[in-house]
Amino acid sequence: MSLEFPAVTGLDEAAREQALARQHRLTKPTGALGRLEKVSVWLAATQGCCPPKPPRRVRVVVFAADHGVAAAGVSAYPSEVTAQMVANFVAGGAAVNVLAAGIGATVRVVDMGVGGTIDDLPADVTKWRVRKASGRIDVEDALSRTQCEDAISAGRQLADEEVDSGADLLIPGDMGIGNTTPAAALVGVLTDNDARAVTGRGTGVDDATLARKRVIVAAAIERGHAVAPDPVALLAAIGGADIAAMAGFLAQAAIRRTPVVLDGVVSGAAALAAEKLATGARSWWIAGHRSTEAAHGYALAALGLDPLLDLGLRLGEGTGALLAVPLIVSAAETLAGMATFDEAGVSDRDA
Amino acid sequence: MSLEFPAVTGLDEAAREQALARQHRLTKPTGALGRLEKVSVWLAATQGCCPPKPPRRVRVVVFAADHGVAAAGVSAYPSEVTAQMVANFVAGGAAVNVLAAGIGATVRVVDMGVGGTIDDLPADVTKWRVRKASGRIDVEDALSRTQCEDAISAGRQLADEEVDSGADLLIPGDMGIGNTTPAAALVGVLTDNDARAVTGRGTGVDDATLARKRVIVAAAIERGHAVAPDPVALLAAIGGADIAAMAGFLAQAAIRRTPVVLDGVVSGAAALAAEKLATGARSWWIAGHRSTEAAHGYALAALGLDPLLDLGLRLGEGTGALLAVPLIVSAAETLAGMATFDEAGVSDRDA
Repeated sequence: MSLEFPAVTGLDEAAREQALARQHRLTKPTGALGRLEKVSVWLAATQGCCPPKPPRRVRVVVFAADHGVAAAGVSAYPSEVTAQMVANFVAGGAAVNVLAAGIGATVRVVDMGVGGTIDDLPADVTKWRVRKASGRIDVEDALSRTQCEDAISAGRQLADEEVDSGADLLIPGDMGIGNTTPAAALVGVLTDNDARAVTGRGTGVDDATLARKRVIVAAAIERGHAVAPDPVALLAAIGGADIAAMAGFLAQAAIRRTPVVLDGVVSGAAALAAEKLATGARSWWIAGHRSTEAAHGYALAALGLDPLLDLGLRLGEGTGALLAVPLIVSAAETLAGMATFDEAGVSDRDA
Repeated sequence: MSLEFPAVTGLDEAAREQALARQHRLTKPTGALGRLEKVSVWLAATQGCCPPKPPRRVRVVVFAADHGVAAAGVSAYPSEVTAQMVANFVAGGAAVNVLAAGIGATVRVVDMGVGGTIDDLPADVTKWRVRKASGRIDVEDALSRTQCEDAISAGRQLADEEVDSGADLLIPGDMGIGNTTPAAALVGVLTDNDARAVTGRGTGVDDATLARKRVIVAAAIERGHAVAPDPVALLAAIGGADIAAMAGFLAQAAIRRTPVVLDGVVSGAAALAAEKLATGARSWWIAGHRSTEAAHGYALAALGLDPLLDLGLRLGEGTGALLAVPLIVSAAETLAGMATFDEAGVSDRDA
């Protein structure tokens, strides 16, 4: 597959206008459902019909990989946890599995570059791997150019597979000990913020680890600025196989005109890169939540996205995005199911 | 029924401790599910068991009434809308109906003091009415003492009926043109804020109407302060049949050890009064969302409640509370369904 992305097409403006007009006729004060009304209008515009159908085939794809920087002591957890958690996803025991099951969504996990060995995993989990763990981004590239292109292509292929299988709402999830370090560095480069601004506590590191992490992020940001105009080179230099694949996935979802709910800081960093790969892709995305990582806020602001939830989450996996799905479903259901003033014989506001 | 409420009993501390301990063993960084973890612990403490059961019998009771102040021109909608919307609730066409149906909750509407006449309503809707509309609270009492006591008793009886019927999560809804005016006045008195601070745009009034509404609220706050030490007298003076009934409902839910999701500014005002009727009731409530009405923020702060959602909603009916229910269900499901570190063979954080 070529790495040239075709142009992203825009949302359906006629459906958007119809949805806006219908919102004004429903039995409630104009605007009283606040953000829910805007979400319903966006969803109608992604689907090209009004009222929109509530999403019923919601699919999470969790991109797993290890990061060389973990060896520098930037996480509260050892790298072996990445592989163990992949097994946990397959077994259905992780937060993302439980949240997905609760709302009828499904979860797929792909090993893009896990360092550890996991026995007995399905081939569809492991066949995507482009390398074992990534390079230490403070001193070397995360990936070779070819590995990065392969990862982006894998993400595109995954989006195509999911859309072709009928998914009507996609969620990118992440799992990888150390992955908030490349995410912070990417956000730093792509939003022009320094390490002090973008480095967060990830899984909950202490002050000494945070200080160490900041130094690593600062070095990675320096390395990233050198190649920043080329998003593929940037993802290879300071990203990782998981983030590169996620960027390809997000860009391709937009090209396939399929809406996406973004999750936390890792998907935020991937989204910034994806917007560089395929300009305009962001109009197909909605932000599920605001994580506690400061870099996430910078990424959302740069993307012009306002998160639906702010619950102090910092887990990743797609969990924050899944928690926002019922709001999107409710937005569609109210636009479709509420009576209009005329239908209900209710007086509209005084002229 | 006597208006003396028995003492509110506290949440189950043993279940709370068990839930906290279990959260620490689940396969995620400690605290990574943020607010969701706190909600799961609260729910366990309300149910007295860990893990808690996801609420499955969620019931909204919409308290409808008209308000004499509407005649002073404080709303963007005419008073006839209250009765029309009651019919809309019964027919299932309002936002609260659609949102409830989407999550498997059910809605009941009671006419506590609607001014208009509605044909063909079930007796269970109309039998609760204590009067037709309330007095103009800037110049006269909303209710007589007896009417207020009857309304509070009705609310208690409704809570009892719902709990006895198996409801495991209750939501108070409101419908009444003009009802943000008494709500603002009650919040003003009970949080010691002035009319400028607590008066909002309700359904979306223009600047001239807002100015008029502020004068009404200021007069009502003055009248309220004169009787403030007695919550029944206060509800009679500047509340209304809907808010008094809702206060009785909220207090009785706590006495019956049944958790409640509060909605917007009207339920916030009723909650402040209910906490005066039955001290400690607030520990049984969670705030579903933060509305755009400033008075709501003052009420939540005084109750020590931090809302789950902030979506710019200002509809009432129980809609904001219903939108928060999936988060509460997810909180219960993650605590119950996620694997522990031991079960999944995942390494816990470095010591």
